[in-house]
Amino acid sequence: MFREDYLLTNETGKRLYENYAKNLPIIDYHCHLLPQEIYENRQFIDLGEMWLAHDHYKWRAMRTFGIDERYITGNASYYEKYMKFAEIMPELIGNPLYIWCALELKRYFGIEEPLCKENAEEIYQKTKAVIEEKHMTPRYCMKVSNVELVCTTQDPIDELYYHKKLEAKDCESIKVWSAFRPDKAFYAEKQGFSDYINCLSQAAQMDIFNFQSLMQALEKRLEYFAEIGTMISDNGIEDFTWMDYSVQEIENIFVKAIGGKTLSQKEIAQYRSCFLMEMAQIYNRHHFVMQLHIGTYQGANKSRELHIGAACGFDCTDDSTRIKSIGELLDRLTKTDALPKTILYPLDARNIENYAVLAAGFCEAPIRAKVQLGAPWWFNDQCYGIKRQFEAVANLYPIALSVGMLTDSRSFLSYPRHELYRRVLCNYFGELVERGEYFSSEKDLKKVVENVCYYNAKNYFVR
Amino acid sequence: MFREDYLLTNETGKRLYENYAKNLPIIDYHCHLLPQEIYENRQFIDLGEMWLAHDHYKWRAMRTFGIDERYITGNASYYEKYMKFAEIMPELIGNPLYIWCALELKRYFGIEEPLCKENAEEIYQKTKAVIEEKHMTPRYCMKVSNVELVCTTQDPIDELYYHKKLEAKDCESIKVWSAFRPDKAFYAEKQGFSDYINCLSQAAQMDIFNFQSLMQALEKRLEYFAEIGTMISDNGIEDFTWMDYSVQEIENIFVKAIGGKTLSQKEIAQYRSCFLMEMAQIYNRHHFVMQLHIGTYQGANKSRELHIGAACGFDCTDDSTRIKSIGELLDRLTKTDALPKTILYPLDARNIENYAVLAAGFCEAPIRAKVQLGAPWWFNDQCYGIKRQFEAVANLYPIALSVGMLTDSRSFLSYPRHELYRRVLCNYFGELVERGEYFSSEKDLKKVVENVCYYNAKNYFVR
Amino acid sequence: MFREDYLLTNETGKRLYENYAKNLPIIDYHCHLLPQEIYENRQFIDLGEMWLAHDHYKWRAMRTFGIDERYITGNASYYEKYMKFAEIMPELIGNPLYIWCALELKRYFGIEEPLCKENAEEIYQKTKAVIEEKHMTPRYCMKVSNVELVCTTQDPIDELYYHKKLEAKDCESIKVWSAFRPDKAFYAEKQGFSDYINCLSQAAQMDIFNFQSLMQALEKRLEYFAEIGTMISDNGIEDFTWMDYSVQEIENIFVKAIGGKTLSQKEIAQYRSCFLMEMAQIYNRHHFVMQLHIGTYQGANKSRELHIGAACGFDCTDDSTRIKSIGELLDRLTKTDALPKTILYPLDARNIENYAVLAAGFCEAPIRAKVQLGAPWWFNDQCYGIKRQFEAVANLYPIALSVGMLTDSRSFLSYPRHELYRRVLCNYFGELVERGEYFSSEKDLKKVVENVCYYNAKNYFVR
Repeated sequence: MFREDYLLTNETGKRLYENYAKNLPIIDYHCHLLPQEIYENRQFIDLGEMWLAHDHYKWRAMRTFGIDERYITGNASYYEKYMKFAEIMPELIGNPLYIWCALELKRYFGIEEPLCKENAEEIYQKTKAVIEEKHMTPRYCMKVSNVELVCTTQDPIDELYYHKKLEAKDCESIKVWSAFRPDKAFYAEKQGFSDYINCLSQAAQMDIFNFQSLMQALEKRLEYFAEIGTMISDNGIEDFTWMDYSVQEIENIFVKAIGGKTLSQKEIAQYRSCFLMEMAQIYNRHHFVMQLHIGTYQGANKSRELHIGAACGFDCTDDSTRIKSIGELLDRLTKTDALPKTILYPLDARNIENYAVLAAGFCEAPIRAKVQLGAPWWFNDQCYGIKRQFEAVANLYPIALSVGMLTDSRSFLSYPRHELYRRVLCNYFGELVERGEYFSSEKDLKKVVENVCYYNAKNYFVR
Repeated sequence: MFREDYLLTNETGKRLYENYAKNLPIIDYHCHLLPQEIYENRQFIDLGEMWLAHDHYKWRAMRTFGIDERYITGNASYYEKYMKFAEIMPELIGNPLYIWCALELKRYFGIEEPLCKENAEEIYQKTKAVIEEKHMTPRYCMKVSNVELVCTTQDPIDELYYHKKLEAKDCESIKVWSAFRPDKAFYAEKQGFSDYINCLSQAAQMDIFNFQSLMQALEKRLEYFAEIGTMISDNGIEDFTWMDYSVQEIENIFVKAIGGKTLSQKEIAQYRSCFLMEMAQIYNRHHFVMQLHIGTYQGANKSRELHIGAACGFDCTDDSTRIKSIGELLDRLTKTDALPKTILYPLDARNIENYAVLAAGFCEAPIRAKVQLGAPWWFNDQCYGIKRQFEAVANLYPIALSVGMLTDSRSFLSYPRHELYRRVLCNYFGELVERGEYFSSEKDLKKVVENVCYYNAKNYFVR
Repeated sequence: MFREDYLLTNETGKRLYENYAKNLPIIDYHCHLLPQEIYENRQFIDLGEMWLAHDHYKWRAMRTFGIDERYITGNASYYEKYMKFAEIMPELIGNPLYIWCALELKRYFGIEEPLCKENAEEIYQKTKAVIEEKHMTPRYCMKVSNVELVCTTQDPIDELYYHKKLEAKDCESIKVWSAFRPDKAFYAEKQGFSDYINCLSQAAQMDIFNFQSLMQALEKRLEYFAEIGTMISDNGIEDFTWMDYSVQEIENIFVKAIGGKTLSQKEIAQYRSCFLMEMAQIYNRHHFVMQLHIGTYQGANKSRELHIGAACGFDCTDDSTRIKSIGELLDRLTKTDALPKTILYPLDARNIENYAVLAAGFCEAPIRAKVQLGAPWWFNDQCYGIKRQFEAVANLYPIALSVGMLTDSRSFLSYPRHELYRRVLCNYFGELVERGEYFSSEKDLKKVVENVCYYNAKNYFVR
């Protein structure tokens, strides 16, 4: 049966979690929820839809078991997909899906039994009844999870139509922001770049005829995003090699890219370097936080991605970005006092220590934690990854300054990830206390716990 | 004294090990045993021979202590070598050799005392008496270790003479397979390539006049291997950079290599890329498992290797292969539905997470765990490396699907490594259970334990 | 309150620490203490000076909190700096500064309370009183810490003026050595190379007109260092790519460098390769230990370093050196039997396993641990980094052979780092014993503990 003290292996940790962490609101400053779904607030069909409509974590796991794609992203019903997934649950020992699903069953449906083939039908019916009885909708899930703010991530051309409508509404006092995510303008070498620039031109209501005007258009759109209250950006960086450039070189590259010509590795590197330099300065002028998500191996399985779709579980991790490339970017920006608040998210977890060291090297007054390492992300957002990050990185960068957890999720049931993070955090602090490595006052412990779980994010991201 | 509960630190783990894991047979699907020794089944001389005739782990350790090479690979007697090794045993704290040797003394000789200089002579005599009394031979060791199948690793030119003779015999019902290991055809840039091609030509009874005919010859030999029942391949890959190629380029490179000309870095990369692409398609046609052993720094200490020999402890680990090179290979094969079952073994343990993520990205129906991460290998096959792999990788790829442990060993006393693996596995599962991170039924736990220890390998490798 | 059993979580570990490790003298074979300060032995002003005059660990941490640079390296008083630092102490949970400061307060001042804003003034006054009452000076700190030998690190042009004066004195029987650190001759591409060569020429009393004479001058200076009793070298290697070279190429590079011309990446790599090859041979001839400190990202934040200074907390870690580059160096030296005793210190902790494997591959008789991995260094010298190194590396290279800890510090209060190391070591051994992974005699445990804490360093470094 599900146990309420799971993960908490020491008394101090239990106390910290129960007394300080458990009931704090959630600021989910990076997620992939669809604003339309939040706005429309449609009642869910069944647990199959809630679990398997968008979740590429589950899809990947199902593929490892050799389950037919029909039951994964194919045209089987949500019921059938749920049944196939339920069957593998007992074999997901050690995998975050196990505890995530268990927590979701407990927290949203009150179910404490371990899901398996034998009770799958029964649990399906039970959860269906709860969905109907409680009219479970996106905002219902957010409300019972004590969510205060979520920040989706949208392209600069987005009109933020639903964000505005949500702002106008009460929405159970949940704030819905959007981060500014200019990735399509960043990948000049990718197909569709030229078409995208046309769309951006329309959105910004100005001509984009060179790189300089591209940046002006992006700045205009960023101002538009800022109007609805956001001050966060997301920047997906597959791999990155710093390469010096001249203004003229960048303008030539832009012309090539617009013309659909193939860019050389050097040109790609130069364009990316310049783009990040310019974007960072815009962020800084407008007091935006720059979030760099580094090291995705986008669509590693290109042939399956082509047939089944992007963000369907075929992305992997890349190991090729060197720390000095990011360092060069931060240094150039520091030189002209143009470095915005910055959060570094390396997907390849081997790098967390080097990035934590780098972040500390660029902090300065008057901002608390001006440059910092982001929460364990994507493949690393499980208990092991979270604990590793605490243990390794607190040594290199004060963990007390961290803005804490995010879900990065497409699911309205994923808020228990904040619960997991808070449990691991409290348990980690408890271990330090019980080993005699920390012996400051309870008041101090309380403050650190509350800051990492809630207040640091509030102070860092919210004006 | 040796303790029977060693490594098992929680009650659930103890129960799982005792009830489910302990008595399962062993499928050792990758080792370096000599088939001739298995066949001839000669009685061992003494523990010195059993421990120090082939074991480069012990040789390396002895060199770190500054012991003279005479007692390592030199012409000292096995007795003398054993005595030198016994002396350093107490200083091997934390090293796998300590627990391996302790286990071997206990399991094969009933000795529970810690070996040291003072009791070395006594233990030498005791073990010698046991060897004589029990007529300890290779097959004796395998039998008492509950070995069901071993898979050696042979070159395509091998006639599998002893494998056939073993097949004809009863052999205490131990199956002896051989993997197909075409490394000599893979390293076109190495000395002796041309001579090797001649030998292969003879073995395959056909002319090899270009790259295409080389692959035909390899396929013929693979069919020969398949006849004796194997369906496994080994591919040693020192370092690997994917490089696009044309058929014509490869044929030109083949001509250069055969002519003993030096290949450029680009040519080496192209040849390796093409070789793996072609070999993989052959594996796929014949339903072979492709095992890729990635990242050996072969003969790092070249000068000593030259004097003392290959596989004598001078190999190290390489860190230069990028994940995208392996990803490109898997993607190209997926594109034409030619990807065989594949196991990825990175020697540089920093990469296990990235490879686990990559493996999951290429899994698909109908095969269970079509692409998977291999067991911790070589420098990583100790309790720490095994535990790390469970803790880190179960999050990224269901551990329940793993084909489990292998010895990779040249010694008939190395089967306790399966015992260590099983203990660490059960203890890891026990920790998850006791922390409340897993609470499915005992039946489910039993199934997962038995699968990882035995049935997954049986189903994956055995027709 | 501070607890005397901190970090020791098992009974065996407690016993080992109390009985064998605790009271051994300290050999601090690598530090950055200023010999002048040791010689002059001036009484400290206050804890502000002792903690914040040189310590870039604290400076980095203060910057992450957004504290104004005036209170870090600026012209605020030591009292003010101390007060600012005291304020963040409770938020340094999980950071080594917390336990280091706590230990320093306890061991040197008898203070057991946790420092915080509220008691900062009181603790300031208490420590000031102790400093005055006990006349706390550099040598006082060293003496009460049971220091037997420290080894500073000086440039070849250094006259070792204070080292000689210290040798002539009694100095509470503390030996003060200096390592030979030829970094300025190694970085031929850096500004000031030519001026440095002039200074070296004067110090060596000989013309330096080409690379060959440069090496002769360095050898002369090394002989001078050897006269005062040292046999250690330090070599800081930011990043390193092995590149073959000819004598003529190196001489041409030297001419370019002296002339202030920009060197290409290839030339830098060739020069560095040749320099290390030649320097290593000199070390070997003179029986010096070669310490390679690999992977500093010197002055990552170049703009702030320019304003505030070098070694002020703007250095980070680099990830670009490949293992084969170091391997090539060791192999070439082995080939001509010119490899000196060597210690490898990778700053990027991801590499410790690969370097440990590499080190073992180059060990040979008759030297015990001829090539070895260095202690966790700089960013890694905390409990987590030390424990990780034991757990990971003991598997690959016998930990019993390690020369143990160093401080690498600029502070006379940093000796408790040896205490931390010894505690983590004993606790790690205790865990192995209590899990049944080690069961040799108490005598053997004692020997291993004493060797790693003291005798190995004594035998390795001291003639």
